Amino acid sequence: MEVKNLKDEALKIHRDNIGKIEIMSKLDIKDSSDLSLVYTPGVGDVCKAIVKNPGEMNRLTARGNMVGVVTDGTAVLGLGDIGPMAAMPVMEGKCMLFKKFAGIDAFPICLDSRDVDEIVHIVKALQPTFAGINLEDISAPRCFEIEARLKQELNIPVFHDDQHGTAIVVLAALINALKLVGKNRNLARIVINGAGAAGISIADLLLEAGFSDITLVSLEGVVRKGENWLNAGQMRIAERTNLRSVGGTLGDVIADADVFIGVSGPAALKAAHLKKMAKDPVVFALANPIPEIYPEEALAAGAAIVGTGRSDYPNQVNNLLAFPGIFRGVLDAGATDITVDMKIAAANAIAQMISKKQLAPDYIIPDALNQDVSVAVAKAVADTANKTEKKQAEKSSVS
Amino acid sequence: MEVKNLKDEALKIHRDNIGKIEIMSKLDIKDSSDLSLVYTPGVGDVCKAIVKNPGEMNRLTARGNMVGVVTDGTAVLGLGDIGPMAAMPVMEGKCMLFKKFAGIDAFPICLDSRDVDEIVHIVKALQPTFAGINLEDISAPRCFEIEARLKQELNIPVFHDDQHGTAIVVLAALINALKLVGKNRNLARIVINGAGAAGISIADLLLEAGFSDITLVSLEGVVRKGENWLNAGQMRIAERTNLRSVGGTLGDVIADADVFIGVSGPAALKAAHLKKMAKDPVVFALANPIPEIYPEEALAAGAAIVGTGRSDYPNQVNNLLAFPGIFRGVLDAGATDITVDMKIAAANAIAQMISKKQLAPDYIIPDALNQDVSVAVAKAVADTANKTEKKQAEKSSVS
Repeated sequence: MEVKNLKDEALKIHRDNIGKIEIMSKLDIKDSSDLSLVYTPGVGDVCKAIVKNPGEMNRLTARGNMVGVVTDGTAVLGLGDIGPMAAMPVMEGKCMLFKKFAGIDAFPICLDSRDVDEIVHIVKALQPTFAGINLEDISAPRCFEIEARLKQELNIPVFHDDQHGTAIVVLAALINALKLVGKNRNLARIVINGAGAAGISIADLLLEAGFSDITLVSLEGVVRKGENWLNAGQMRIAERTNLRSVGGTLGDVIADADVFIGVSGPAALKAAHLKKMAKDPVVFALANPIPEIYPEEALAAGAAIVGTGRSDYPNQVNNLLAFPGIFRGVLDAGATDITVDMKIAAANAIAQMISKKQLAPDYIIPDALNQDVSVAVAKAVADTANKTEKKQAEKSSVS
Repeated sequence: MEVKNLKDEALKIHRDNIGKIEIMSKLDIKDSSDLSLVYTPGVGDVCKAIVKNPGEMNRLTARGNMVGVVTDGTAVLGLGDIGPMAAMPVMEGKCMLFKKFAGIDAFPICLDSRDVDEIVHIVKALQPTFAGINLEDISAPRCFEIEARLKQELNIPVFHDDQHGTAIVVLAALINALKLVGKNRNLARIVINGAGAAGISIADLLLEAGFSDITLVSLEGVVRKGENWLNAGQMRIAERTNLRSVGGTLGDVIADADVFIGVSGPAALKAAHLKKMAKDPVVFALANPIPEIYPEEALAAGAAIVGTGRSDYPNQVNNLLAFPGIFRGVLDAGATDITVDMKIAAANAIAQMISKKQLAPDYIIPDALNQDVSVAVAKAVADTANKTEKKQAEKSSVS
């Protein structure tokens, strides 16, 4: 069913339901004996069990399945810095997706603070409440520092979805696209247009996954070591990208590229650019709702495979394929971190959802609403977590 | 039904259900058009509506019905300072009660911080997430400062249940008890045994409600202006209590008292004390599970009316009679504070649940699980809020 008047309909369902999530009790309180079990005095024994063994908390309280969806509202969708109050509808939507696709209880935490230190302190103090933290819609470069510090200071998994969710699904799509065009990941020449949180995170993950020839382009120009306009994140990624040390703009690096990944803005890739790319070019034009180039135009200009961020074109690169399964996996395994190995395992699991026989230029990535994906991702992530733990256990038993 | 092995049963139901609350979606996501309404792109219009008019937030998001149950785990039940992790089972239970008795979505926030400043900062930063804050099981005297500062700095209602919930239900019980014994509140001589958060808060509310002769007794002795062991809260209340400036212990002030209110500990009131009280003494022995004096013993020693904190005796003074209705009322009225007038209105509403005909020494207060109480309390609180607002509007239109 297509929605006729999206704005009116969206406002109506939000207003009619006073938002989209609610807190429900798993048990009813019918009489005073129920009350004595879920509340005083019986609950005291449950508290004491956790005092005795803090690890029991995730088995005796809802925390075991509870993820905090944390934002400061500084980079919400394409709307930008709209603040923590106006960000709430997006965070509630995210919580719904956690439940629907992974059975995870997720709660939105919209913070009235823009201070990196303060946000880190607050999320740290919330650790007894959540078994995992999904950072959402926090502007770059603050998001890098917030995530890095939380990953170091918390002993629960922390994941900035805007960075890593996108990166994982792009990697999955790329794995399948390269299969179809018969190219090798360590030779493929990749251009990433956009050098913000998503672009840098994609570059990082592709490098970890065995890609080696990557160049990023920002609004200021091609990201190159030594450019005086680089921010901290760009400076770091410049050390490992742009091997030929090319300056200039997108037009200067797109020639002979095998893959274009756009996480930038409307109409950033011209047909003329695309025609200069290597044979069988792969184009992921992920800007939303208006992509860097529309699929029709890209295909007409010679693209072999096109992906977008939109649900009304084939090959939608949608974070939804990654984050629910990732968190399900780490919660199931009791992992305390989301590692690079887990992210690569998740990407492989997503790519493998499409069999060799099914694989086609207009079907390189599963449908965003396919509920089997999160199950496969969760298993891959949990298996990776368990293997890592086993390896570490062996290592420490040897030493 | 009586619970045979409370500890085992309580642990079992917590473990079997992995805690007691969950986050549910109010709407299903069946297809991509559903997704486009509850999430991108439709959700963007809902965000924009809140940017345009922040007041829309409580109508378009779940925040409108969402209360944060905040603790640092420093004074949990009778268990004391067990920390924020072990406090979670109690907070989840509280959230269940909010839902069951007032249809309020309540979420537990267990904070890993004991610093007053930091707790105030964190709760302040959480303001975009919650329409009200219920402080719970925070130790005295920190709880006073935390509540006072939050009431001043937030524009949403803040309520420390351990203080005010108890005080409101005690006032309700006292209103009905004095009706039965035919005494007047401005003449009645009240002794409160226990001068912590609950005792001081009861004294405060009784003074506001027209009681005038109140004396508090702490473990150190009778609270009297000038004693060198008074803490800040006791120092403040000493200005308005202990009119005859008596020193010493409970034994020195219990003679001729009309009412004994115990928020202290097991067996603090002896039969010999009780026998020295005025005619038709009223005894609220609220320590739990072991009261200051057992009802059988109190009645045998001459008490006219006895209340306890236990569900297995008549006249249970239970916070559950107050907090759900209080929050329902302020949320319904869109009030930004919980005022003294609202607390007195709530106490009157609870007292009035029992008709003149029903009123009896063993029935001065409604059953804790009576679901009609929160409805009546909510109405009384909302009416008071609306009246105050109207009065303020008139005042400002005059000036």
